[in-house]
Amino acid sequence: MSTPTTDCDVLVVGAGLAGLKAARELTAAGKRVRVLEARDRVGGRSKPGEICGHTIDLGGQWVGPDQKRLLAEAAALGVNTCPQYVEGDSLLHFDGKRRRYASDIPPLSPLALLEIALLERRWRREAGSLPVGAAWSAPQAAQWDSESVASWMRKHVRTRDARQFLRVVTRALLCAEPEQVSYLCMLEYMRQGKDLRTLLDVTGGAQQDKFVGGAWQIPKRMADQLGQCITLNSPVLGIDQHADAVTVHTAQADYRATQVIIATPPALAAKIDYNQPLPSRRWGLLQRMPMGAVIKIHVAYPTAFWRQRGLNGAVASNDRIFNVVFDQTPADQSIGILVGFMDGAHAVEMSTRGEQARRDQVIADLVSYFGDDAAQPIGYVDQDWTQEAWSLGGYVAHMPPGVMTQYGPSLREPCGRIHWAGTETATQWCGYLDGALQSGQRAAEEILGG
Amino acid sequence: MSTPTTDCDVLVVGAGLAGLKAARELTAAGKRVRVLEARDRVGGRSKPGEICGHTIDLGGQWVGPDQKRLLAEAAALGVNTCPQYVEGDSLLHFDGKRRRYASDIPPLSPLALLEIALLERRWRREAGSLPVGAAWSAPQAAQWDSESVASWMRKHVRTRDARQFLRVVTRALLCAEPEQVSYLCMLEYMRQGKDLRTLLDVTGGAQQDKFVGGAWQIPKRMADQLGQCITLNSPVLGIDQHADAVTVHTAQADYRATQVIIATPPALAAKIDYNQPLPSRRWGLLQRMPMGAVIKIHVAYPTAFWRQRGLNGAVASNDRIFNVVFDQTPADQSIGILVGFMDGAHAVEMSTRGEQARRDQVIADLVSYFGDDAAQPIGYVDQDWTQEAWSLGGYVAHMPPGVMTQYGPSLREPCGRIHWAGTETATQWCGYLDGALQSGQRAAEEILGG
Repeated sequence: MSTPTTDCDVLVVGAGLAGLKAARELTAAGKRVRVLEARDRVGGRSKPGEICGHTIDLGGQWVGPDQKRLLAEAAALGVNTCPQYVEGDSLLHFDGKRRRYASDIPPLSPLALLEIALLERRWRREAGSLPVGAAWSAPQAAQWDSESVASWMRKHVRTRDARQFLRVVTRALLCAEPEQVSYLCMLEYMRQGKDLRTLLDVTGGAQQDKFVGGAWQIPKRMADQLGQCITLNSPVLGIDQHADAVTVHTAQADYRATQVIIATPPALAAKIDYNQPLPSRRWGLLQRMPMGAVIKIHVAYPTAFWRQRGLNGAVASNDRIFNVVFDQTPADQSIGILVGFMDGAHAVEMSTRGEQARRDQVIADLVSYFGDDAAQPIGYVDQDWTQEAWSLGGYVAHMPPGVMTQYGPSLREPCGRIHWAGTETATQWCGYLDGALQSGQRAAEEILGG
Repeated sequence: MSTPTTDCDVLVVGAGLAGLKAARELTAAGKRVRVLEARDRVGGRSKPGEICGHTIDLGGQWVGPDQKRLLAEAAALGVNTCPQYVEGDSLLHFDGKRRRYASDIPPLSPLALLEIALLERRWRREAGSLPVGAAWSAPQAAQWDSESVASWMRKHVRTRDARQFLRVVTRALLCAEPEQVSYLCMLEYMRQGKDLRTLLDVTGGAQQDKFVGGAWQIPKRMADQLGQCITLNSPVLGIDQHADAVTVHTAQADYRATQVIIATPPALAAKIDYNQPLPSRRWGLLQRMPMGAVIKIHVAYPTAFWRQRGLNGAVASNDRIFNVVFDQTPADQSIGILVGFMDGAHAVEMSTRGEQARRDQVIADLVSYFGDDAAQPIGYVDQDWTQEAWSLGGYVAHMPPGVMTQYGPSLREPCGRIHWAGTETATQWCGYLDGALQSGQRAAEEILGG
């Protein structure tokens, strides 16, 4: 190996929002920082794209009023918000039927709606019993963690509509199937995002606003301010801990510092070679937090024709593959854009089938939602996050049953000179840009306080 | 990158039993093969060690009469078997009580024994319904895969003793907790090992015999016969697929061939960089097959004092940490040796606490099983597989709920020029040396037949 570069105090692995936030906090406190990024760009799961000349977010994009860190960070960087379009009716495509509805309450059977309301109350109570940052130590944690969301549902959810609703919700939130996710993990996710309603809603919820010009500008501007201390195209191969320092290896160069923050998803931290094996509980966790599967798709039309019919573009479906859709029309309404997701098993399947098959599927689904006007798009852009080698999926990693109670305590625990960041390590808004910021700040504070 | 070495037709990643078997089959068929091994030794999860001058297996060691591939391979290599010692009584340490028993049937309550017998019949029937090599397509696969073994038990097992028994069994077989393992995965494991009884038993079962001198000699002799084509200390960093070839990168050199076999556990295959992203379903699987956690421990005494008291050294326990023990006394009886395991959550916990704490725990547990004579060992050797960077755990990877049905079909499916081996890809005796051999042979046949 070459002689390591020793021009910094702290190395940060990953130039996503978490790593950039950590680097900013450390730099502000007078530390010399170097950020090593595997890709040729910053931003991680936040990524710019383009459709018909309009800039779009290929990754995370929305923000809710409870995400105060993200709102403050964006404001400080001069990135403004605008509301998600909500005028008019939403659509539910459920069991082969298309239904319009005006409120936040989907047109399911009264019995199912009643059950969902009762479930929401139950989840609020159960999630509220989880100690912040230590869900594994809740009184009922062992029981809840022994169940998948699916097996829990079979026991506790009576109406078929409510079960279907919860399946769509699990996919939409975690990009995974209810069979794969621990019920305790789901409760913790609800707690972190305040409650299920807040996670799902537009007005007052996590999809209330967007960033003018795109959320990707937030990490971009953070990186611009950090300047030369970010090194792109530098996947970290190995990390060696010594008595007084840590050496980080990349293909091009080695770097030496006193501490390192790994600000990547768990599955990527698992790719790195460590000269001192990580503690058993940490290795175990890194092997047990798979990323969800998601493909984000934008479709452009000459006009936002759905608006003219009193529709706001929002769709949820339990029987179509392109099953969550929102309006993404630019402010000048020069064209109309819809954005949506294939998630969980749908994403895996449609990733395999290739872009042309996906496009055909998306158009077919949009026609079934919006009619024949949807058949002739002028633009189509999809982003298959399962095929991004430096994400391995999206939006977020989840925990299968039995993982949080046994391996969870290692989630944020430093391993010697190695500290952990990334939205998965947040205690609020895990899976969101806001959680990424929180995690970066917390990791920086660990170092500054230590 | 350097100019790749091009002296072989097929590259094999991993010199465990699977990789070595593949290399032998290919070599025998006239192919030029190179095996790249990350460690400084061959054998993978089969590894030699020493206690008081006696050679021992720190990894896999037993063989049963149904493991015909392994028996044939060993015989051809001149490695002989000898029976596991069974004369005398076994011990059960259950809920604070120590009980001796003479048969294969542990002294549980009659009701629990009846229930276990009924469960075994049920599992034989259900496992028998799984299509070989395609458990995910069984009629009830979706239902079974939605449950953890723990949530399934809560529904279907009435007596506490039977539940406790099944917990000990899950740990002992898969080195994981019932909460973490899909019920479908458990059924498939039982099918692969014939049935639960065969997996657990000594006489007639998977622990009937040992190899004289140790199982580690099998890969060692296979490697000796392969000779120069094995390159040690060469972790594979990346694999590039081209139209007509594949290039495998290590830190020291690059290698080019027409095909590559990856004969590592899934979690290690996930560490490699692939120039063509793996199919979504394959990435998904590699992120979702964690290794179990296990520490294997040998303890030596001046004599096999337990034999003198009519005990065969076998212990199973639901309330002690060193909870599965066997007699491992050498044939000449010059000393007495016990061998056993800490598995699942116990292994993770005791790995964290360090070797001295483990040793104290092991001795305390052995004293509670065998009395004060166990308090003064003359030798202690433990092997913490969770800390082996090139295994990441042991004995085997398992699937959490929801994984087999969604991601299972990618288990053996080649990705272009990349073929997959390793005991996890076996269709018989997954998790065993026998399964490793089968997988290596199957991968070689894919290439020879293709």
